[in-house]
Amino acid sequence: MRAQELIARKRDGGELAPAELRALVAGITDGSVPDYQAAAFLMAVFFRGMTPAELAAWADAMLRSGDVLDLSAIAARKVDKHSTGGVGDKISLPLAPAVAACGVAVPMVSGRGLGHTGGTLDKLEAIPGFSVNLPVERFRAQVAELGVCMIGQTERIAPADRKLYALRDVTATVESIPLIASSIMSKKRAEGIDALVLDQKVGAGAFMKRIEDARALARTIIAIGRAAGKRVTALITAMDQPIGRAVGNASEVEESIETLRGRGPADTRELTVALGAEMLVLGGAAADSAAGRARIEAVLDGGQALERFARMIAAQGGDARVCEDTGRLPQARTRREVVATAAGVVEAIDAEAVGVAAMMLGAGRRTKEDRIDPAVGIDVLKKVGDRVAAGEPLALLRVNDAAQADAAAARYLGAVRIGAGAGAAALRGAVLEVLRDGDGGGP
Amino acid sequence: MRAQELIARKRDGGELAPAELRALVAGITDGSVPDYQAAAFLMAVFFRGMTPAELAAWADAMLRSGDVLDLSAIAARKVDKHSTGGVGDKISLPLAPAVAACGVAVPMVSGRGLGHTGGTLDKLEAIPGFSVNLPVERFRAQVAELGVCMIGQTERIAPADRKLYALRDVTATVESIPLIASSIMSKKRAEGIDALVLDQKVGAGAFMKRIEDARALARTIIAIGRAAGKRVTALITAMDQPIGRAVGNASEVEESIETLRGRGPADTRELTVALGAEMLVLGGAAADSAAGRARIEAVLDGGQALERFARMIAAQGGDARVCEDTGRLPQARTRREVVATAAGVVEAIDAEAVGVAAMMLGAGRRTKEDRIDPAVGIDVLKKVGDRVAAGEPLALLRVNDAAQADAAAARYLGAVRIGAGAGAAALRGAVLEVLRDGDGGGP
Repeated sequence: MRAQELIARKRDGGELAPAELRALVAGITDGSVPDYQAAAFLMAVFFRGMTPAELAAWADAMLRSGDVLDLSAIAARKVDKHSTGGVGDKISLPLAPAVAACGVAVPMVSGRGLGHTGGTLDKLEAIPGFSVNLPVERFRAQVAELGVCMIGQTERIAPADRKLYALRDVTATVESIPLIASSIMSKKRAEGIDALVLDQKVGAGAFMKRIEDARALARTIIAIGRAAGKRVTALITAMDQPIGRAVGNASEVEESIETLRGRGPADTRELTVALGAEMLVLGGAAADSAAGRARIEAVLDGGQALERFARMIAAQGGDARVCEDTGRLPQARTRREVVATAAGVVEAIDAEAVGVAAMMLGAGRRTKEDRIDPAVGIDVLKKVGDRVAAGEPLALLRVNDAAQADAAAARYLGAVRIGAGAGAAALRGAVLEVLRDGDGGGP
Repeated sequence: MRAQELIARKRDGGELAPAELRALVAGITDGSVPDYQAAAFLMAVFFRGMTPAELAAWADAMLRSGDVLDLSAIAARKVDKHSTGGVGDKISLPLAPAVAACGVAVPMVSGRGLGHTGGTLDKLEAIPGFSVNLPVERFRAQVAELGVCMIGQTERIAPADRKLYALRDVTATVESIPLIASSIMSKKRAEGIDALVLDQKVGAGAFMKRIEDARALARTIIAIGRAAGKRVTALITAMDQPIGRAVGNASEVEESIETLRGRGPADTRELTVALGAEMLVLGGAAADSAAGRARIEAVLDGGQALERFARMIAAQGGDARVCEDTGRLPQARTRREVVATAAGVVEAIDAEAVGVAAMMLGAGRRTKEDRIDPAVGIDVLKKVGDRVAAGEPLALLRVNDAAQADAAAARYLGAVRIGAGAGAAALRGAVLEVLRDGDGGGP
C-alpha cells in the first residue's frame, strides 16, 4: 500500500476497498503511516465523505485496532447508550442502573469532560472512593452479577481512534460526520454490546446546531451499526439550555440520585425514561417504547433503580451512603446567587456559556491536564419559560475559589435572555425525533 | 496564531490575512507548525484554492523564508525562463546563451530530473568537468561578466518551498494550481530576476493534460508575478510527443549544440526562438516578439550564441571543446534500433512512455538516490506525421546496460501509434498561445 495513492483516490472522490482502509488504519496505529499522511487523508474525508461500505470497513478496522470485550458468556442482552454531549448531561448515572434493574445489562465505558462539557467519569468520581479504573475481568464479572458497570476507556480500546482523535483535534478535521460516527461506533462496539441507543443532541448548546446535521450523523451511526449487526436507535434531543438543574460534578450526582428516587427535574426524568425505554426494546425486555417507558418509570418510582445504583457504587469502591445522604458528597465552601436584572420570562439560556461559567468555577477542564473540583458548579434555578422578577435568583453558584466567582456570575448572566417570552413559547420537548434501524436510515 | 484555526478557516472557504500566511510559512519552516498541520492545510488549499491576495502573500512568504539573490549591481535586465517540464526538454541549454548573446542577463537556477522527466542540471553535467555548484559570489560575477550562469538550487533558496514540496509529494497535494504556482515563483524570484518567461506545457506528456488547466496555472503565475512587480509572459506549448530528437543527457547536449549552430530539429529551434523572443521583449532588448525572434535567429545562425555557450562551459569548469567536437561527450557502448512492425504514418508518440523507456536505460532516476548514466538515451528518428515502412527504424537506443535494452525497446514500441495518419493531421504547432501580463490574466 502506498498511502499517498489512497489519499489521492479519496481526494478525487474515488472509493477505497475494505482491505485498503484496514491497511491504512493499521499503518496509522503502528506509525508506519506518518501523521502527515493521516492528516491529509482526514482532510480529504472531510471534503469527500465516505461511502457506506467505506464507513463500515473504516469503523471496523478502528475497532479491531485494539481489544474487543467478549461478554458472550453473559446471558442478558447488553445495550449501551451514547450521548453526543451536552451541558448538565448526567443522564447515564440514573439511566444505566434503571435499565439494569429491568434485566438488560449495561456495560458502559465513558469519557472525561473537556471544555464546556462534563464527562461521566468526572461525575462518578465525585462519589467518595468510586473507582472508574477496573481491570477487564472485574468489569466483566460486575456486568454479569449486577448488570451494570461504569468505567473509563482503557489504553487498549480502539487505539487507532485515540490517535486519530488527537490528530483531528489539531488539524481542523473534527467536524466530519463519517469521522465522528466511526469514532463513536469503534469505541462503543469494543464494549461487546449487542445494541446501542444514541442520544443525538441538537441545538445551540450542541455540536450539531441544525437538525439536518443531527439526523445525518444519527443515520450514519445507525448504518455503521447495521453493517456490524448491531441495532442502533437514535433519539434526537434538544440541547438549547442545560439539562435539568445541576451543572457540576457532585451536584449532578445529587440530581441523579433525586431522579433515581422518582423525582428530579422533569427534563432529566424524561430523557432517562425515553432513552431507557428504547434500551429495553433493543434488549428484548419491552415489546415497544410505551411498555419500556412504563417499566423504567416503575423502577425509578419503586426504588429498584436507586438500589441498583447503590450496589454499583459499593462494588466499585464508593461510599453508597451518598444515595441516602447526598450531604456526603463534596460540598463547596460558599454559595452565591446570580440575580435577574430585569423582570420577564426566560427566553433562552446559552448552554455553552453556562458550561464555560461552570468551568471557570473549576467544574471543568480547559486543557486535558487541568484538575477539576467536584464540589463546585452551578444550580440553574430558572429554566426557559419560567417567569422571574427583577432581583430574583436565576442560578446559584457553588464556589470554592472566590476569585473566579465574579467572572463566572457575569458569564452566567450574559447567557440568559429575559424578555416577553416569545422565544420560550417555541420551546420544543426534550425528545424531538426517534430514528430506528430500518426506518429508511442510512447516511 | 493557532494553526488549527487557520486550517479551519481555509477549510470553510474563508480568507487568511497576509500576516497569518506569513506566520504559517514561518512556523512550517522552523518546525513549530508540525507536518501534520501543514498537510491538513495543503489539502484544504487543494479543495478551496487561494484568493489572489492569499497567493501573493503565500508566495512572498515562501520566497522570504530563505536567501534572495541581489543582482541589482548588474546593469543588464535579468530575465529567466521556467518550463513546467517535458520529455526531451533541453531548451534551457541553447536558450540561455542565445538570450545572453543579445544583451539580456540570464541568472538561471535549475533542478534535477525525477521519474520520466529530465533535469537541466543532469544535462549540463554530461559535459566533462562542468560544475553546477558555484558559490553565490561566483554566480553573481559570472552573470555580470558573461550574462549567463546555470547552477543548481542551494539549500538556502526558499527552504519553506523545499519542505512543502517534499510534504506535498507524499500527501497527494501536488496537483494544486496555487501550490504549484507559488512554488515556482518563490524559487524563481529568489534568483533576483526582473521578469520571467514561462514555458507552460500542455498535452498527454505534460502535467497539465487540458489547455484550460494550463491557462489557469499560467494566469496564476502571471498574477503572482504582478503582485511582486515582476512581469511574466507565458507560452503555452504542446507536449504531445518528445521535444526534438534526443531524450538523454549527453545526446540532449549534442542536440543543443546543433541548435546553437543554427541547425537542430525544427521544434527545438522554434521553442528556443519563441521563448527567447519573449525574454528579449521583457528584457528591453527587443521592441516586440517579431524583433525578438529575428535577434535570436541571428545569434543562433551567426555563431554568437554557441560562442557564449562555450564561454559559459569554460567558466564553469567544463570542457568547452564539446562545442566543436560532440564526440567528447560520454558515448554509450552500443546502439540498438527500434523498428516499426507495420507501415503507415506515426500518429502519436506517448512522451511519458518514452521518458520511462529512457529512464529504464539509465538516463533518469526512479528515486532521488539513483545515479544517472549521461551516455544513454533514445534518439527519436520518426516524429508525429512522419511516414514509416515496416522494418524501418523508429528510434535508436543508446545502451550501456544490455539487460535493460529489450524492455526499453518494447516500452518505446508501445509508445508509438502508427495508422492512416488521421491524428497526425490534427497536430498543433509547438507554441499554442501566448499569455502576457495585462492580457486580462489573473487566476
